[in-house]
Amino acid sequence: MRIPIDLAKAYRLLNHGPTVLVTTAYGSQSNVMAAAWSMPLDFNPPKVAIVIDKKTYTRELIDATGVFALNIPCRSLAGMVTQVGSCTGRDLLAFEDESKFEHFGIATFDASQIAVPLVEGCVGWLECKMIAEPHIQNTYDLFLAEVVAAWADDRVFSEGHWHFEGHDELRTIHHEAGGAFMSIGEAFKA
Amino acid sequence: MRIPIDLAKAYRLLNHGPTVLVTTAYGSQSNVMAAAWSMPLDFNPPKVAIVIDKKTYTRELIDATGVFALNIPCRSLAGMVTQVGSCTGRDLLAFEDESKFEHFGIATFDASQIAVPLVEGCVGWLECKMIAEPHIQNTYDLFLAEVVAAWADDRVFSEGHWHFEGHDELRTIHHEAGGAFMSIGEAFKA
Repeated sequence: MRIPIDLAKAYRLLNHGPTVLVTTAYGSQSNVMAAAWSMPLDFNPPKVAIVIDKKTYTRELIDATGVFALNIPCRSLAGMVTQVGSCTGRDLLAFEDESKFEHFGIATFDASQIAVPLVEGCVGWLECKMIAEPHIQNTYDLFLAEVVAAWADDRVFSEGHWHFEGHDELRTIHHEAGGAFMSIGEAFKA
Repeated sequence: MRIPIDLAKAYRLLNHGPTVLVTTAYGSQSNVMAAAWSMPLDFNPPKVAIVIDKKTYTRELIDATGVFALNIPCRSLAGMVTQVGSCTGRDLLAFEDESKFEHFGIATFDASQIAVPLVEGCVGWLECKMIAEPHIQNTYDLFLAEVVAAWADDRVFSEGHWHFEGHDELRTIHHEAGGAFMSIGEAFKA
C-alpha cells in the first residue's frame, strides 16, 4: 500500500543512493528519464539535488514548469528503467506522437502537490518544486528542489525505515554504467 | 592491490550511491567525517557534489585548503564509519590533542595530487579540488569539486566495473539513518 511519508523523514528514501526516474509534465507533454546522480540536500524542509543534462527533454519540461518528481524504481522495473534511460521523449513525440509512458506502457498515477505523473510499481516517490539557481543550472546542469510530498510502498518502507527482507523484487536498484546495476543488499547496524 | 582509475571512469566509483568518508588536512590538523550525501556531477573531467555542514570541522579545513578526498568504505569498516560520523574532530583536538585518525587508530596513506590522508582499507578513493561556488556553499552547504585522481581496490573494482562477488566484507555500505546501513547487493544486467 502507498503511504505518505513524514517530510522530515523523506531524505531516507534517497539516503542510500538509489537510481531514480525523473517524471515531468507540461500541458499535454510528459516524460520520464532515468538518473543516477541525485542526493538529499537537506533534512527539513527536505531538499534534493539532481543533475539533469541540458539536452534532455525532461530539462525542457522542468524549465517550463519548475516541478518534477523523483520515483524510486525497484528490481522488477529495471528493464523499463534501462528502456526509458536509452531514448529521448522528444524523438518519440516527434516521430510517433506518443510519450514514453504510452510507448513503453508505463502506468502512472497523479502526484498530490504538483501536476506530474508518478510511476506505478516504484517503491518511493518525492514530489519536488525547483529552487531557482540559474548559475548552477546553466553551468553544471545541477538542479536543487524542495520536496513538498513523499510516498512509499509500505511493504518495504515504513516508520522511517527500509525493510526489503522477503521482497527481493522490490529492492532499490543502483546503476553502475551501461545497464549494469546492483540491487541494494543486506541491512545491518554498525 | 590499489590501482589508479582512469579519470573518465572515476564517476563509476560513486554512481551506485555509497556512503563516503571525507578526509581533509591543513598543516598539522587533519580530519575524517562520514557523508551520505554525495554524487557524481560530471563525467570527464570528473566532478562531484557533496553536502558538508557549516558546523563541521571538515568544512573549516576545506575552507582553508580547497581540497579533500572521498574515501569509499566497505562493510568491514562500518563500525569505524559510525564512530567518525558520531563525533567532531574539533572536540577531540581541543580536549585530547589528537585527531580522529589517532583516536580511532585509523591507518592512512598519502594522496597523490593533494595533501590529504586517504583511509586504508577503503575500496575506492577520489582526490578532489574544490570548485569555488560561494553562493551554494553558503546557502546550501553544497560543495562542487573536480576529481584529480582516483584509486580502487582491484579485488572489487577493475576495468571500470565493480565485482563484489566473493568479497562480502568489501561491499560498499549505504547509510539509511542512525547507524542503520545496507550493503550493496547482487549485480545484474537489465
